[in-house]
Parts: sequence; structure tokens; C-alpha cells
Amino acid sequence: MRVVGIGPGGSEHMTEKAISAIDKAEVIVGYTTYIELLEEGLKKGKEVISTGMMKEIERCKAAIEKARQGKSTVIVSGGDPGIYGMAGLILELLAEEELIEKINLEVIPGVPALCAASALLGAPLMHDFVSISLSDLMTPWELIKKRITLALEGDFVIVLYNPRSKKRKRQLKEAIELIKEKRGDKVAVGIVKHATREGEKIIITDIRAINQEVVDMGTILIIGNSKSRIYNGFMVTPRGYENKNKRRDR
Amino acid sequence: MRVVGIGPGGSEHMTEKAISAIDKAEVIVGYTTYIELLEEGLKKGKEVISTGMMKEIERCKAAIEKARQGKSTVIVSGGDPGIYGMAGLILELLAEEELIEKINLEVIPGVPALCAASALLGAPLMHDFVSISLSDLMTPWELIKKRITLALEGDFVIVLYNPRSKKRKRQLKEAIELIKEKRGDKVAVGIVKHATREGEKIIITDIRAINQEVVDMGTILIIGNSKSRIYNGFMVTPRGYENKNKRRDR
Repeated sequence: MRVVGIGPGGSEHMTEKAISAIDKAEVIVGYTTYIELLEEGLKKGKEVISTGMMKEIERCKAAIEKARQGKSTVIVSGGDPGIYGMAGLILELLAEEELIEKINLEVIPGVPALCAASALLGAPLMHDFVSISLSDLMTPWELIKKRITLALEGDFVIVLYNPRSKKRKRQLKEAIELIKEKRGDKVAVGIVKHATREGEKIIITDIRAINQEVVDMGTILIIGNSKSRIYNGFMVTPRGYENKNKRRDR
Repeated sequence: MRVVGIGPGGSEHMTEKAISAIDKAEVIVGYTTYIELLEEGLKKGKEVISTGMMKEIERCKAAIEKARQGKSTVIVSGGDPGIYGMAGLILELLAEEELIEKINLEVIPGVPALCAASALLGAPLMHDFVSISLSDLMTPWELIKKRITLALEGDFVIVLYNPRSKKRKRQLKEAIELIKEKRGDKVAVGIVKHATREGEKIIITDIRAINQEVVDMGTILIIGNSKSRIYNGFMVTPRGYENKNKRRDR
């Protein structure tokens, strides 16, 4: 069984390894949106099991069942399967059902949403960063807020995943207030909606001017550190070359 | 001009977009190691400018000069060009030389080393994480230590880049001491050396048992959070499905 990262959306961002894994499979399992992103040729003649947003556990169980039956099975995951993706749940279920030794599992990495967003913005992640999901369905909001506070204290660049859904709007609002309070109101912010797929939107702004209405679950926000700058339509976090004339050893 | 992420090493992890960008270029610029990773067919008939480790600024300046001459130029960067890669330096130099409006720049994302390492380990990054470079050439060691301390306080998974070089061994040692002190000595650790390329080595261990001698600049360390576990050769950080029977909205 393979858990395959299909990248941010556009098929040109899939790796050859991901394409070949899907091509060789008999069964493809995935969230409907990701299955739809796959080119028709890759799905032709295969059993496709696609389910909606709220069905992650069922989806993984279906994939495990197919693999148990000896079918060559792939589970597709948007972006990279290891960053808020499907790799962990599959491993947890395999461990729970004591199948970890019986079913051969391979995780195939993909271009994560945070890299696709970063590339479209310029180079906002050039220094140390944190990735935080604002979804409090499985993580207490107090812990999420604590993590944002610590990230601000360490002057990390902050990547926010799952920032806002139709039912969950308060978290982004509170996060922005926290950022303004601790990092000031001149912080550079990049917002990338639906990177490399239909409806792509790129906004470079500052923390005061974020239009929260454009932000949805398919949006990544990148909050600059104290040194991040906006140059002519690009967001850049300096690595430090200007401070030292010394060259780095990597 | 395009800054192109070629992924962690193995050519099967390059995206179609990266391959096509290199294929169409007249000039390829890059660090010798990354140029060597490219298949011969991609380099044939092209001007190749490769330089060693310490020559980043020269390399970027050479690429900018070629682009100014109107040549279709790519700069290749290992992993993703936006994570401790070449995208930022190019943008800084273009801004400094007031060329940002004159030279058309595109950043093409790649599979970053942290995702390649994560996939080989299982699913260690399934919850909020930080990425920290241990190189103190351009960042004061006090700030790096502060960031590690804050990441430990927030129970983040911690990805360590540039952990140790022939001349720089103290930083990893101190980081490990800090982690033991704050997170305890049973922390799961994944070590991936030269992911997907020659000399690949995958070690899953705990913080007490790290063999620092195997760690070099091409190694990524992933330090688990308090819930990360080792199951049968896989390192997994639970996302929280076991705590709530509620399903997440993404």
C-alpha cells in the first residue's frame, strides 16, 4: 500500500514517483477533491473509492481492506501526505489493527501546500518557521494559541494551515489579533488560496489589511518574521546575508 | 529566470514542472552536488555553471548576469528553493541591484528535504512543527537556542536542518542536551541522512541514543513531540484521532 502526495493541485507539480505509483495501482482511494485533480488517464480502468471531507477514517479503512485483499492500493493525499495529510492516520490504523507487519507501506512525498504558497509569494520561508493548523477540532484552542504566542516570541515565520471554514471563523480572527499585539501591525503577510489550481489567488499585504472573507480551508497564510519585507510584489524573509559578509557553509 | 527545486535527490522525486523548466533553459546554474544529481540528458548542450559550497552569492550573481543577457536561465536548488534554498538570495540580489522589475522571476517548488525525511520515517510531522537550522554562521547561536527552547515549550515536533558539519559539531550536542532537559529522555527521534540519494541512511531511535557521528550537513533530524511513537520501524506523531471520536473538517 502506498500513501501518495499529489502536490498542491496542478498536475505539473506531481513527482514522477507519485505518477508512477498511481499508474501501477489497481485501487485509488482519496478525498473527492483530490481524486478529481488527477488526470483521467491515471484513473482509467481502476477501482476508485472517493469520499467527502468528513470521512477520513472510513477512507483509510477502505484502503486497508483493499490492501488486505492483496490489491495494489494507493491513497492519494493533497500536498505532502506527511503534513496534516493521510500518512499518520493510515499508520495509526495499521498499528491499531496489528497489520503493520503484514501490510507493506510506503509513503511517497509530494510538494506541500506551504512550499507551493511560498514559491508563489517569493521567498517568505527563508528563515526558521513554524507550521500551525488553526483547526481546533482535534487540538484544544488554548494549545494552538500558546503555540502562536511562542512562535511570535521566537520571531519565527508562521505558516497557518486550515485557517478558516464556513463554520469556523473565530480562530483566524483571534490569531490575527494575537499577531498584531505581539509582532506589531506592520508584519508582512502572504495569503495563497488554492495554489496552482482553479481559483488561485495570491495576496501580499500586511497584518492590518487582511481580508478574512477570502480565506478558506484551501488557503495558506504565511506571516512574516520581524525582518520579512515586500519588494515589488514579492514577499521575502532575508536569510542574513546582509548582516554578515561571511558566506554560509551550505 | 527560474529558481527550480529539484527535490531531495532521486530524480523520480522531481516534478514535471521542474524537469520541463530545466529542459527549456539555455543556462543551468547550481551548487556542484545538485548539478551532478541531474540526469545527463537534461544538461546536454547547455551552459552549466556549477560552483562549490561557499560560493552562493557568486552563483546567484552569475545567474542574474546570464538572465540580463537575455538567456533563459535556471538556478537549481536542492529540495525546495524556498526552504533554506536559493529563492531568497536571488530576490535579495535582484532588489539590491534594482532589477526586480526588469527580470521576470519564477520560483518552482520542489519536494523539501523535510518531507522526504518524513516519508522515509513514517509520519512524524502530522502535528504542528517547527523547522530550525542549526547553522550559526548567519544567525546568532543564542537566537537558535531560544527558538529550540520555545519549540520545546510548545510541544512542537522539531525539524533540524544543517545539524552538523566537520567544523561545527557543538551546536547539535547542545541542542540534544536542551531537548533532553526540557522534553525528557524518551523522545522519539528520526534521523535521515542523504534522503533518496546515494548513501541514504534512516535511523529511528530516541534522544538518548543518537549517534552524532553519523550526522552531517545532508542529514535531517526530526525530534518527536510528547506524543510521537515508534511502531515497528515507523515514527508516527498522532494527529489526535484517538482523543476525539469527532472527525476533522478537512
